[in-house]
This record gives sequence, structure tokens and C-alpha cells, in this order.
Amino acid sequence: MISIFFRTAVALFIVLPWIGPAGAAPVERPNVIIIFADDLGWGDLSCQGHPTIATPNLDRMASEGQRWTDFYSAASVCTPSRAALMTGRLPIRSGMCAETPRVLVANSPTGLPHSEITLAEALKEVGYATMCIGKWHLGRPAEFLPKSQGFDEYFGLPYSNDMGRFKKIPRRGKDGEPDYRACRVPLIRGDEVIEPATDQRQLTKRYTEESLRFIKTHKDEPFFLYLAHTMPHVPLFRSEKFVDHSRRGRYGDVVEEIDDGVGQILDTLRQLKLDKKTLVVFTSDNGPWLVFKEHGGSAGPLRDGKGGTFEGGMREPAVFWWPNTLAPGIVRDMGSTLDLFPTCVKLCGAQLPDDRQIDGVDISPALLGTGKSPRETMFFYRAEKLYAVRHGAYKAHFFTRPSYGKDAMTEYEHDPPLLYDLGQDPGEKYNIAAKHPEVIAQIKRIAEQHLKGVVPVENQLEKGYRLKKRRAVKTVPVKKPIPDRE
Amino acid sequence: MISIFFRTAVALFIVLPWIGPAGAAPVERPNVIIIFADDLGWGDLSCQGHPTIATPNLDRMASEGQRWTDFYSAASVCTPSRAALMTGRLPIRSGMCAETPRVLVANSPTGLPHSEITLAEALKEVGYATMCIGKWHLGRPAEFLPKSQGFDEYFGLPYSNDMGRFKKIPRRGKDGEPDYRACRVPLIRGDEVIEPATDQRQLTKRYTEESLRFIKTHKDEPFFLYLAHTMPHVPLFRSEKFVDHSRRGRYGDVVEEIDDGVGQILDTLRQLKLDKKTLVVFTSDNGPWLVFKEHGGSAGPLRDGKGGTFEGGMREPAVFWWPNTLAPGIVRDMGSTLDLFPTCVKLCGAQLPDDRQIDGVDISPALLGTGKSPRETMFFYRAEKLYAVRHGAYKAHFFTRPSYGKDAMTEYEHDPPLLYDLGQDPGEKYNIAAKHPEVIAQIKRIAEQHLKGVVPVENQLEKGYRLKKRRAVKTVPVKKPIPDRE
Repeated sequence: MISIFFRTAVALFIVLPWIGPAGAAPVERPNVIIIFADDLGWGDLSCQGHPTIATPNLDRMASEGQRWTDFYSAASVCTPSRAALMTGRLPIRSGMCAETPRVLVANSPTGLPHSEITLAEALKEVGYATMCIGKWHLGRPAEFLPKSQGFDEYFGLPYSNDMGRFKKIPRRGKDGEPDYRACRVPLIRGDEVIEPATDQRQLTKRYTEESLRFIKTHKDEPFFLYLAHTMPHVPLFRSEKFVDHSRRGRYGDVVEEIDDGVGQILDTLRQLKLDKKTLVVFTSDNGPWLVFKEHGGSAGPLRDGKGGTFEGGMREPAVFWWPNTLAPGIVRDMGSTLDLFPTCVKLCGAQLPDDRQIDGVDISPALLGTGKSPRETMFFYRAEKLYAVRHGAYKAHFFTRPSYGKDAMTEYEHDPPLLYDLGQDPGEKYNIAAKHPEVIAQIKRIAEQHLKGVVPVENQLEKGYRLKKRRAVKTVPVKKPIPDRE
Repeated sequence: MISIFFRTAVALFIVLPWIGPAGAAPVERPNVIIIFADDLGWGDLSCQGHPTIATPNLDRMASEGQRWTDFYSAASVCTPSRAALMTGRLPIRSGMCAETPRVLVANSPTGLPHSEITLAEALKEVGYATMCIGKWHLGRPAEFLPKSQGFDEYFGLPYSNDMGRFKKIPRRGKDGEPDYRACRVPLIRGDEVIEPATDQRQLTKRYTEESLRFIKTHKDEPFFLYLAHTMPHVPLFRSEKFVDHSRRGRYGDVVEEIDDGVGQILDTLRQLKLDKKTLVVFTSDNGPWLVFKEHGGSAGPLRDGKGGTFEGGMREPAVFWWPNTLAPGIVRDMGSTLDLFPTCVKLCGAQLPDDRQIDGVDISPALLGTGKSPRETMFFYRAEKLYAVRHGAYKAHFFTRPSYGKDAMTEYEHDPPLLYDLGQDPGEKYNIAAKHPEVIAQIKRIAEQHLKGVVPVENQLEKGYRLKKRRAVKTVPVKKPIPDRE
């Protein structure tokens, strides 16, 4: 009797997080649109506090839906971050992160392994029409493009917009307009290059138009649209209508054009009466690229940016919208792009793979207002190395390292780790390691446990990458804690 | 004929800015409530982007009303900032700013000169019931308390909550709860000390209760309430309900209790059907006191804090609320606490003094949605010295100086001045002086013109202040521009 009860209880414990409290489940499986910005900083929307970038459409989306304050990408650079979003798995598990190169380059012969199951594949399996629009960056060869990974259609750039064949583009804070012809990045439809040196000034606009076309075409069937904007990654381009649109200069223009596109997408959903059956998510792949100064974004009050494991590198703006179903408000639970895979799989009635480690968790209780996000821990990797762990409000940095620049090959090893209370101190200014040895001990145990479950796999980014000279990372032990910042 | 037309045109030109476009003027003169926080940082509300302070009432007030992104106090410390708010005049004109002491101290024998005309006096003149609740800090002797300056009633502390007679209070980021009894700051009603060592834990709550009482009592006549919270100035106190209310620790608790009070005030206005005839303004006296670390606030993406002339020292959260009359939205025009005097005087049908320089401008066109704020320039003083000038998007720093700490007596003279484009670069990181000599020349002309109009007056803060030893400010010319800040 007791043993039956115990087994039932265990079964309930396992099953419950997936079905959610009865009655709160949405009546119909939603369409899913994930809008993914590139290098947008945590502080770069007006609803996140930016003083001079105007994002009225995202602000409205946030006020009608949910704005998450503590939402993370799974990596601080592009390729690994996107691999994680697509698979719900830390990039270390798919071999999609490396010290050099940090991301796939234009002539990399590889991409996301086909053994991985993408969100597109999972949703296609249950009848969703799927399309990827925009920057892919998970493999340039045709056999790694989106159509090989569960997407029915693809329209966009295969990698970053600074990866064309050019000698020099004026992107380092210079005033001149960059020349899109010099960038020579290819625009692809399906598997075919349709424009070998696409006019990047039109990209944001064309991505939006293509999105509207896809939505209208599939209005009568479930669909999944992954719209991964090329912008605001440098070099910054915007269409004529948005030139000098913003007080924040070209960077602001570019963000405001993306915001305008978000508005058009939501308006179209309303017009087609799809708004109440579509989950729209807006977030970014990593933090702002600070070395580009005015051409890079802002992490607001957070520390550092793209490339690093402080909060500015991986904490992202995150807005969820699904009228009548989402409980509107500011959500301060923890979430991650890793969680979009299991959450969408659950909401769309698809199957979660059971033959592999999924690092994402189903955050639908927090979305639907029936409970909290189950995410309690976030792991911060730099390439293949675990640098920091957040558990609850506390974040311990075992290693820190300049995100970019001439000092970026020096890594600092902290023992005890730097410890910050992100509730009290979201800017990671005041190291409180000395006060909380018990928190450090707990986070160390969590890190050790996690690392035990990480099985080495073949590195995909290093494959075929011709290194002129491998730069070695120098590890410097920090004997004394670094003094408070500021 | 021509001359009559000319005179009419001139008269119209002079009168028009005061009456506003016909038809857009509010039908009835409003009640006015100014809620003034103490040392609240630009980034410390959730609608300004703070990740862990929850201010749902101020967020709602902002979404129903206007949130101004570029709103300034007229000084970076308390007494001069309040003198400016009360008079619409830069503190240099009333003698209410000094190098030492920077603010009135507990035993200062002086206060705001009675020759000044306060907003309370101007509104009382046209029949408004007036009350000051909270921190005054414009003179402790009875003859300088609010009742001597146009307020019918007063309830609050005469100066800052760290100015009592105590030896040491634990306010430097220590964990222990400060002891209110050790602070010994007096609570005053009218002119009488009613509690010599008031329980600061109850202050925010009592201020709110007193505000509700005042509003209810005067619901049938026009009123002006100036609610100047003692918090979140250190030492931080909150009532029992708000202990551990916030993820941001004690500082967050304190801000969230103020936010709760704002909610109660707006609710009461709604219940009494006064919401559509009351202008409510929320702002702060200066930026966050950063040397107190977790016990100080955050300027978000802005540079530096209280005491300095970078943006973090003087740019403040500013929310305006007046349902059905204000055009809701985010306003990116420039405004200042200086402008509250002429704006309220205009909206309430009172008289603007014509015998003195008023530095504030009437920003009602921007509030009512009939035009832009006429403010194009902001002057940043440190004590009696003009350190910086903002004109349009550009801010030139002729002098900079650490806001607090051991280096604060060294002032850096910049020639050419540091120049920042606050649209592109709100964090004042990238000095662009070399690129824009014409902007510097224009701002220099504006500064010179302004300084010609500043007539020396008797300094009120230095009067009767016993200096043990006057510390001299050391001016260091900066030959080479300071490198960009990261």
C-alpha cells in the first residue's frame, strides 16, 4: 500500500511539471513566433529603461504580455547561443562552442550536428509549418542550412553580417555609412544564394515582409516562425525610412526598425485574429558588443557585454506575448533561451526527446500564471569551460576574463569565487564571497554535479578551421579578492 | 495700422506661451501634488529598467501618464535642489548653495530667504490650501520652517535623516538594522517638535497617511501638497510590512514602500473623483548616493551619482499624472524641477513674479500634448560654480570632479571641455570634443551669457557654519583629454 502510494507520488512528481495544473492549460496549441535580435543589450529597449531608443511596439507588447527581467541566453556569442535556442541543450553538448573560433566562420565546413533535434523538427513532427527568416549561423554548407534542420522554408543570411569577403568596413564608431557592397554577404532562399552581396539596408524590412507573408500563408494551420534578425549586429544598416529616426544614432535607428517590424507582426496577427492563438517571444542572442562603442548597445545597469560571463553578456531583454492566455506583468523568475525548446514542445503538444540531456525547463507555469518558473540555476560557459554559476539570487564566478580586446586571452581564476547577490546587486559590483562560504559551498556542489553529467563530444567549430597560430589562454590565479568595482 | 498689428502680434507672442493653444487648455485649475523622493536614482524604478525593485504603482502612473526621460534636478545635493524646486530659480540666485557646507546642517541658523517666492506662496495667493509633508531641509529655525514659506501645514523632518545627534549609525553597507533611536531626528508638526527622536521605521507610512488625510480634508477646494519623502536617503528604514518585501534588500524595501504610498494616493484621488482634476508629479532631489553601495541606489545606464555633475547626479525619474488631460507616453523633451514652479503657476492661474529671474520654463505644452517643452538648455552647478552645460543633445563639461570620497577636493578643468552627445551616448562615455568645435563654441557663448546674468548674493549656507578647517579645492588643468570611459 505504501509502496503503491510512493510510486504514484513519484509518477505525479515527474508528470506534473509537464501537464501543469488542470484547467489552466490553453485550449488550443498555439502558433509560435520567436523573434531573435543579434547583439541587442539588456538595456536597449525603452521598457528596459533606455533613455533615447524608442521602442513603442515592444513596450506595448511587454505591457500586454510579460517582460522577464532575469532571462538568459545560453552563451555570450552567436553560434553557441543559437545552437542552445534550437536544441534546448547547452552548446557544450552539441560541440557548438570553442575557444577558437568562438563562432562558425564563413567557410566553416560544419554546422549543428544532424543528431541534434531542433525545435523546428519537434514542431514539424506534430504538423507545424516552419520557417526560418534571418541569420542562421548554425552551418553554411547547404547540408547544414535551416531546411536540413526541420524548417520548410528559409530566407536570410547564413552567418553574421560582418563575415562577407571584404577588406575593411567602417564599423568602429566611424561616422561614414558602411558600404553594403563591400560586405558581400549572401542572401539565401531555401538552399540557393539569391543575392551574393545583398543590400543590407533592406534586410530588416525584407525580413518583416517575409514574416508577414509566411503568417498570412499559414493562417489556417499551426506554424512556427523563427525570425532571427541580422541587426543590431555591426555593421549597422537600416532602410531609408529609419535613417535618423532615433536620437540614439544609427544603432537606435536599427533597433527602432526592428521594433517597427514587431509592431507590424503583432498587428497582422490581430487582423487575422491569430493574436489569441499565437505565442510571440522576443529576445536576443547575447549582450551588446561594447568594443564598438556607439555602434554597440547597452546592458543598462548590468556589468560588461557580449563575449563575457558577467550579466551583461548573457542576460537579455525577453518579452512574451499571447493575449488572453499569458498573465501580464513583469516576471522576475529566472528563464533562458534553453527553456524555449521544452516550453514550446509542451505547449504545442510535441514530444520531448528522452534519449538525451535537455538543459531547458518548461517555464509555461510562469507564462500561464499557474506557478513559478522551475529554473533555479544558470550555467555560464565561456567556450567549453564553465566560468560561473547562478543559483537563486547568487552568482559565483570561478573564472572571469575580459570579453574582448588585447587582454582577452588572460583568464582569472578566483578561489574563493567572486560572489554576487544579483537581487541586491544586479550590477555585480560588490563581492560578498567572504560573507557567504555556505553559498559558495552549495554552488560548488551544483557545479561539480553538473560537470559530471557533461560528456565530451566532438568539437564542431574547430573542424576544418585553419589556425595561423593558436593563441593560448593564460590562467592567472587571483590570490586576493578583486576590490569592489566602481 | 501696421503699428497696431505689430503691437498685437507682440502681445500675442508674449501671451501665447502662457495660455497655450485655445481649446487645449484644461477647463479647471488642477490640484497639485508633488511627490519628491530623496536620493532616488534614475534607474531605481521598474519602469526605468530596474531588474529587482518592483514599483507597480509608479509603473502604472507612468503608463497612464507621462514618463520623462530627460528631467533634471537643479543641483546634485539636497538643500540647493529643494530651493530650486520651491522657487523655480537656480540655487545660486538665492544663496542656497555652497562648497562647504554643501547643504544646511542641523544647527544652521538660516534657511531659504523670505524674499524668495515659493510655489506654496504663489498658489496660496490664488486660494490653494497648502501643505508640506516630509523632509524640508530649507531651514531648521521656526522662522524658516514651511509655515513661514507659504504652507498652511507642515508635518515632517526639518532636514536629512542622518543629521540627528548620534555618534555612529550603521549605514555603510553593514547588515545590522540601524537603530532609529540613535539617529535622534525630530519630527515636527507646524513649528513644534512632536517627537524628538522619531521612529523612522514609521515615517514613509505616516507621510502617506498624512497625505491621505490632507487630500480628504481639502477635497472640495484647490490644494497643493508637497510630499517630500525622507527615504531612500540613508539610513534606510521601512515599516514592518515592507521588511524583506523586495529582492533589492533594504534599499528596495524602502523604494517599494514609497511606491505603495503613491498607489494609495492615486487610489484615494480616484475614489474622491479628484483624479481628473489633480496633477501629480513624482521625481527626486538628486541621484543615488553611490558611496553607500547597496544602501545607495542606481543611476541605471547613467554616469556617476549624487554630488556630481555627470548625468547620474542630476537626471531623475520623473512621472506626471493627470488622467484625461495629459497626453500619455514617454516624453524625451528636456525638463527640470525648476520648471515645476512656472508650470504649476500657469496651470493654477497664479502669478509669475516679474521682479526676478525665473530659471524654470513652462513645460505645460509638452504635458498637455500641444507642443514641445521649451527647455533647450540645462546648467549643471557644483556649489556656486558652473561645471557643465547641456544644450540640445550636447553636454559640455568645463570642470569635472569626483562626487564624494577622498579625491573629491580635486577638480579637473577641461579646455576644451569634455563633450558628449547624450542622444547617442547617454552614459557619457565617449568624448567627442575634437569632432565638434562649433558645438563647444556655441555652448561657451551660452555659458558666458548665462553667467553675465548671475548676480552675486549673500551665501546662506555658510552663515554661522563653524568650520574647523576649510578644505581648499585644488584645480588641476587637464592637458590631454581623458581617455574614453568603458
